[in-house]
Amino acid sequence: MSIFQLHPQLQQDCFLLGRFELCQVLLVNDSQFPWFILVPQRENIREIYQLTPDDQITLIQESSYLAKNLAEIFNADKLNVAAIGNLVPQLHLHHVVRYQTDKAWTAPIWGKFAAVPYTEQQLNELLERLTPLKLLQ
Amino acid sequence: MSIFQLHPQLQQDCFLLGRFELCQVLLVNDSQFPWFILVPQRENIREIYQLTPDDQITLIQESSYLAKNLAEIFNADKLNVAAIGNLVPQLHLHHVVRYQTDKAWTAPIWGKFAAVPYTEQQLNELLERLTPLKLLQ
Repeated sequence: MSIFQLHPQLQQDCFLLGRFELCQVLLVNDSQFPWFILVPQRENIREIYQLTPDDQITLIQESSYLAKNLAEIFNADKLNVAAIGNLVPQLHLHHVVRYQTDKAWTAPIWGKFAAVPYTEQQLNELLERLTPLKLLQ
Repeated sequence: MSIFQLHPQLQQDCFLLGRFELCQVLLVNDSQFPWFILVPQRENIREIYQLTPDDQITLIQESSYLAKNLAEIFNADKLNVAAIGNLVPQLHLHHVVRYQTDKAWTAPIWGKFAAVPYTEQQLNELLERLTPLKLLQ
């Protein structure tokens, strides 16, 4: 049996909020955007199509559950959902809450601004808002 | 019965290659990147989670079929798959073939460079390479 390990770059940049059946649910430590990442707990997978057909279905179900909840919790103008992975080879799916008033709109956010870490108070407030999100742990 | 209509901006920027069961398959008219877009033929949908659960499954199946074929046909270093939609509100899923030698690597390509349209010869060569891709029409 192999043990899934989160990529060190994702460990460094994110908080682990919990897990769904397939994915770890991460919060990117950047207070400029509500920005979440799903990471399927499967080894040596870089592209969505490399997952098994069943895992692909679970991924889109978990992604949609997360996106719908984020849209409601944050009253989003738009969700940006993306598997890019040019820098971090472990498959990970970004979910970014976007507002027409955010600093990058209408552009995508990736690679545009240095992260601004959450303060402890901001982080606690954010975690409070996320309570409708049902995580396995 | 309502008739699905492709958003005018996508009509303007892309060639329609054909269809899968759910999605129209578009080629973006930008010779700098092999860049394809899937558009679910459903009206008034802006986010993946707004599709029915069955349509979501079909979408990820069609996306993975397209991505796997593109990776093989173009010998890609990476696929970038994304639903952004900050500018065009009709749900559309980008599939961009990326190379470590392309002009935007490692950044995402969206909004970075003005499109460079294909010449007729380039387009014909590209369509020839795409013949392994099985489209409904």
